[in-house]
Amino acid sequence: MSNLWKVSTDRFTNEKESIMRNGNVYQIANGYMGYRGTLDEFGPDELVGITLAGIFDRVGDAWREPVNAPNGGFIKVALDGREISARSTTVKNHQQSLNLENAVFERETDYVSQGKTLKIKSTRFLSADKPNLGVIKYSVTSNKAAKVKISTGIDYNIWDLNGPHLLNLSPKKKNGALLVHAVTNEASKNVAIAEAVDLNFGKETHKLGNKKNLRVISLDAEAGKTYTFYKYFAVYTDNDPVKTSVNEAAINSVKEAKDLGYEKCLDKHNAQWTKKWEYCDVKIDGDDEAQQALRYSIFQLLIVAPVNGSKNSIPARALSGQVYKGAIFWDTEMFMFPFFLYTYPEKAVELMRYRIKTLAGARRKAKTEGVGFRGAFYAWESQETGDDACTYFNIGDPFTKRDLRTHFRDKQVHISGDVAIAMWEYFKLTGDDSLLLEGGAEVILECARFYYSYAYFKKDKNQYEILDVIGPDEYHERVNNNAFTSMVAKATFEIANATVKYLKQKHPGKLNALVKKIKIARELPLFVEAAGLLYVPQPDEKTGVIEQFDAYYKLKDTTVEELKARMIHPNEYLGAGQGLAVPTKVIKQADVVMMLNLFKDRYSKEIKKANWEYYEPRTEHGSSLSACAYAMVAADIGKLDWAYNYFLKTAKIDIEAKYKVYVGTVFMGGSHPAANGGAWMTAVFGFGGVKAGEEHVSINPRLYKKWKNLQFNMVYKGDRFNIKITKDDVAIIADISNKRKHTFIVSGKSIDCAPGKPSSIKYQ
Amino acid sequence: MSNLWKVSTDRFTNEKESIMRNGNVYQIANGYMGYRGTLDEFGPDELVGITLAGIFDRVGDAWREPVNAPNGGFIKVALDGREISARSTTVKNHQQSLNLENAVFERETDYVSQGKTLKIKSTRFLSADKPNLGVIKYSVTSNKAAKVKISTGIDYNIWDLNGPHLLNLSPKKKNGALLVHAVTNEASKNVAIAEAVDLNFGKETHKLGNKKNLRVISLDAEAGKTYTFYKYFAVYTDNDPVKTSVNEAAINSVKEAKDLGYEKCLDKHNAQWTKKWEYCDVKIDGDDEAQQALRYSIFQLLIVAPVNGSKNSIPARALSGQVYKGAIFWDTEMFMFPFFLYTYPEKAVELMRYRIKTLAGARRKAKTEGVGFRGAFYAWESQETGDDACTYFNIGDPFTKRDLRTHFRDKQVHISGDVAIAMWEYFKLTGDDSLLLEGGAEVILECARFYYSYAYFKKDKNQYEILDVIGPDEYHERVNNNAFTSMVAKATFEIANATVKYLKQKHPGKLNALVKKIKIARELPLFVEAAGLLYVPQPDEKTGVIEQFDAYYKLKDTTVEELKARMIHPNEYLGAGQGLAVPTKVIKQADVVMMLNLFKDRYSKEIKKANWEYYEPRTEHGSSLSACAYAMVAADIGKLDWAYNYFLKTAKIDIEAKYKVYVGTVFMGGSHPAANGGAWMTAVFGFGGVKAGEEHVSINPRLYKKWKNLQFNMVYKGDRFNIKITKDDVAIIADISNKRKHTFIVSGKSIDCAPGKPSSIKYQ
Repeated sequence: MSNLWKVSTDRFTNEKESIMRNGNVYQIANGYMGYRGTLDEFGPDELVGITLAGIFDRVGDAWREPVNAPNGGFIKVALDGREISARSTTVKNHQQSLNLENAVFERETDYVSQGKTLKIKSTRFLSADKPNLGVIKYSVTSNKAAKVKISTGIDYNIWDLNGPHLLNLSPKKKNGALLVHAVTNEASKNVAIAEAVDLNFGKETHKLGNKKNLRVISLDAEAGKTYTFYKYFAVYTDNDPVKTSVNEAAINSVKEAKDLGYEKCLDKHNAQWTKKWEYCDVKIDGDDEAQQALRYSIFQLLIVAPVNGSKNSIPARALSGQVYKGAIFWDTEMFMFPFFLYTYPEKAVELMRYRIKTLAGARRKAKTEGVGFRGAFYAWESQETGDDACTYFNIGDPFTKRDLRTHFRDKQVHISGDVAIAMWEYFKLTGDDSLLLEGGAEVILECARFYYSYAYFKKDKNQYEILDVIGPDEYHERVNNNAFTSMVAKATFEIANATVKYLKQKHPGKLNALVKKIKIARELPLFVEAAGLLYVPQPDEKTGVIEQFDAYYKLKDTTVEELKARMIHPNEYLGAGQGLAVPTKVIKQADVVMMLNLFKDRYSKEIKKANWEYYEPRTEHGSSLSACAYAMVAADIGKLDWAYNYFLKTAKIDIEAKYKVYVGTVFMGGSHPAANGGAWMTAVFGFGGVKAGEEHVSINPRLYKKWKNLQFNMVYKGDRFNIKITKDDVAIIADISNKRKHTFIVSGKSIDCAPGKPSSIKYQ
Repeated sequence: MSNLWKVSTDRFTNEKESIMRNGNVYQIANGYMGYRGTLDEFGPDELVGITLAGIFDRVGDAWREPVNAPNGGFIKVALDGREISARSTTVKNHQQSLNLENAVFERETDYVSQGKTLKIKSTRFLSADKPNLGVIKYSVTSNKAAKVKISTGIDYNIWDLNGPHLLNLSPKKKNGALLVHAVTNEASKNVAIAEAVDLNFGKETHKLGNKKNLRVISLDAEAGKTYTFYKYFAVYTDNDPVKTSVNEAAINSVKEAKDLGYEKCLDKHNAQWTKKWEYCDVKIDGDDEAQQALRYSIFQLLIVAPVNGSKNSIPARALSGQVYKGAIFWDTEMFMFPFFLYTYPEKAVELMRYRIKTLAGARRKAKTEGVGFRGAFYAWESQETGDDACTYFNIGDPFTKRDLRTHFRDKQVHISGDVAIAMWEYFKLTGDDSLLLEGGAEVILECARFYYSYAYFKKDKNQYEILDVIGPDEYHERVNNNAFTSMVAKATFEIANATVKYLKQKHPGKLNALVKKIKIARELPLFVEAAGLLYVPQPDEKTGVIEQFDAYYKLKDTTVEELKARMIHPNEYLGAGQGLAVPTKVIKQADVVMMLNLFKDRYSKEIKKANWEYYEPRTEHGSSLSACAYAMVAADIGKLDWAYNYFLKTAKIDIEAKYKVYVGTVFMGGSHPAANGGAWMTAVFGFGGVKAGEEHVSINPRLYKKWKNLQFNMVYKGDRFNIKITKDDVAIIADISNKRKHTFIVSGKSIDCAPGKPSSIKYQ
């Protein structure tokens, strides 16, 4: 196994900080749940977390957040009566690794205790085949004969940021399986976790207490002999379509897995992973650093892709814990969705189904926010219902210890357009209109309706304006005519109009039914007008620069360094109305540049260059979403060194895990799937120059100098392609099973790619 | 002289705080300059200040503020070689008084020094007849023979908040007169102060040094003999229409005064004051407390009324110093102007001419604020040019020691409408259209143009809206559809339309010329449309309450006490985006209630009552402008005890001087002419129930129970009336010199008041 497919360390550092970071770096997940990369014997103090997708809970007035399940992977060994743990026992050797090929976590540790050496080895995966299932292979070896006691089962001491979410936790043993059942605090949803082992040594007793439901296996271990067992755990909640009860489903699940056996479980798991990588891998020849970071980024996306049929989406910190309330932000549509759309559309569609599912919540938000609007105003922080989990006061002020009023929730209106754009992209690139028909068109029309209801008309300028918003640059709140937001709103009107036009042609009956259902007939002509008359800040005639929002140019021009030098508290927030950045031109993250990337076809290279050069030095990159936008536009305008540096920044974020894990006392650790998506986009869209449109795929390669070639697969209109870009040419292999030929335009040269036919075009 | 015409004390308290407060309480002024109520021997340490009207200066980046002149009233005595001062010498008796009848300040002090008693007596006034002139009568008496040395002349140690404003201060003696000439720092404007004495004892020498230009009179005082002299000082600046130089004008002025003599100067001064009180006094029979406070309030307005022809207005702290940059706020139009309009129109017109003079500044502000607007956006803090002296960061944050961004300057757009409303009221109540023709109409049209340019149209609601403003309640910044602001804007459109209609009828040629000059023809129909379609929040159908601005009802309902209990620093500001009041319903000052008072004819008593009762408990009264609005509306709805309490609050503000004079280290003392105007309005409009309209004057008395009668004079359409309201009836005496008869409607009963004819109507 090459290093390019693996993350590993051969050292255990007994510091909270290191344990915590490794918990992030070595996490595994399968879309249903995430399991932090902690050791088998760890508990809540080491931030063990099994975070469930799509099930949320609130305790009192605290933040609503995803539910963490009891830890069915718990295993602790005692040697001659002494408990063994990396935290308290001498560690002679330690190795742990995460195999990116199949999301298997392994650890091997040699402990020294009372003159004996105990080797512990375990392998852990969350099944990509059966999403409720986790599987562990565990073995112990003592170099000398010893009394070994293995305690394993379910630890329901749960680490929560704002818990406890699970009440009435009740342990049971039933037909050899262990079970913990509980209900969520807020909605009394049932949650069950079952565990079974396949074990053929020692003597087993059942032990309850200290919030653990354990089986204790006592054995007289022979010197040098390895004792191996297999462990299966399964989590079920009321979100799962269970026949009888979650308890039964969980128990059945672990029994079935046990019957099937470890190796077959792993085979099925691996088969899924083989498919994933076949779809999604990107190969960079000649640059191992970039290759590993990018692959790790793709891996991060693959482990959290929603389970088919779940209608779940991917939170901003994915399944790495409860940070950011497990909520779904614009991150998903703008930074993760393109990866899935181009490689793995059955996951992309799930992300969109989540937005259809939460349309009712978006409607409620529109109705209740401010003076009340019509249409769909998607939540800034969206959980399972689509109601907004974002609070109005959500940043702590270190000076007053009060929470600052921010306007993320009520003014960051671009979120609705981000959803509509993704919805339309899905249709455009897959050619599959079923999503539109099953609710996508309704989402699009309701988003347009929201913008119409939000927009004002300026009569003396004969234009609609989108006022009082926050763009991606969150340091400047409540601005008028933010270029990004207005462009997104304009695109939403265009998309709504295109949707109506398409449905009128192809599904007139369904259009009529929809128009009637949501009573929107009278408004449709207004969307056409608004698409034409909505004001979007235009490039300055002389400089080409687009003003980020009204009167941005009047702000003070300060460097990021000057600004930071004025900080008097390390945790002071730079925005929120009175922050240091507010009166200045310093921005938090790509805003105009993000817009130029999203709408890259509408602007010339000169305009992009002018704006990149204007805004780049004024950007603080206070968000992990910023780097990839600068990377992609840099690639677009030929600044390849800049593109590469920003690419590495976005691609290495989780593998290096150098970000702050604590802000004050608040845990902020976890993965950054948007940045990961940004890494993939920079490779494929940026350096690869790929852009799929309604009629064809264009490829305008600008390979980075270190890269010999860049190779990846993609899906277009349901057909698959393998693309290999070298310094001189682009080779396209259309899959033999493709249904029809498709047009690719490589650096201006058009080529038809028929099924099974390889093509190669010189582009330089 | 009755106590009702006098403010006095018979004690000197040698504490900075007391000296400072007395400086405010005993100040005199004559519209041209103010002279704080300090003692003759005091200097900058005791905050001696002669603040000039309409001449401003800036030093470096500090606040621009009015220029303080050198002190031409300085007199210090030495007894047997020891300097005498209330700060350092034993004071045996001290009395000082301010005569409200004629704005004469007197002090009499018996000092004990080296076994001798020295009596000092002085009388000081700033001529109401010759505005550049100050006059002092000064006498010394030693009970035993002594060597007395009197140093008098010009002290040019100047107390400034953000000075020094006067450069090249050069002292001179010329033909017996002392002179100090200087130039302002910013614009090199000439300022001269001259002094002459009329003195017939002792031996005079000239002494320069320590920033004083003095004459020293040495005499061997006989026991018990009183030595009296007269002193004249005059200030001239480049703002004065001088023939040759400011020096010569100042010297001539003091020489003329000296030639005329003290008594004749005083006679001329008194004649002016007789007229002022004849016009403006309000008599309350049966309530000395109210009488004295109200008279003192009226006095405060009379001393600062602008000099005829000066085109000056009245700053928020009048001429009491440099606080609030000597700037003119909406205070003038909304709180002071009505007093002058109803009693002393030749002063009211001056206030309006100031706004005509500063129209160019208002146009500049409109053009440069935000994205740039058309029309006239009057300065929130206006000085001589009409450019805005208000800074964007003008409240100190005690937590960070940084200045907070507030939006007083850029978002408190009601100021333009306040001006337009006053302009139209002047025309309506005087019947005199000359002000309209000399620029008033242009001001009105430019204000309407500004609102049109600021307003947005909401197509789906078919209405114009005024967005993103601050209403009078400054704790809630950047709100939409503030009832007060929108109503003021609507009224401005109506007034613009009425102006056009009037001019078209009476002065079509002048209208055409104006329309052409400001190129506004195309916009006039839009003003008609906007007057009709501008949205103003309406009373709730059930409760009658008018929502102060969009989504105000969604704010947290907290009591003022709860809010204040949450303060963690005594100087923390409750607004500015993150202040404690921002997320709550607690408001700084009357806002909806202010609107209901300003537009009292448009709302029923029920609506006023509902809103008064809703907003009163939510009002913090963080501004001195608040009490009178609550007082007037309370009177209007029959809550007379409430009205009376708020009346006393507004009327006593300056006579009691209990307000904070220092906030941190910043001097905030001075008079509150807006609150003074509010006291007059509460008496006449509130308890008197007087309201003059276009066709008639209505009087709906609601006399407070303690009051036997309320008596005042007023002007309507250029004719004068004496009104006396008793418990049962209203007696109106139309002046014999009136030009025609006028209609009064007393509690619904109409009566025609012909010149010289007394009328009496029973109203109960």
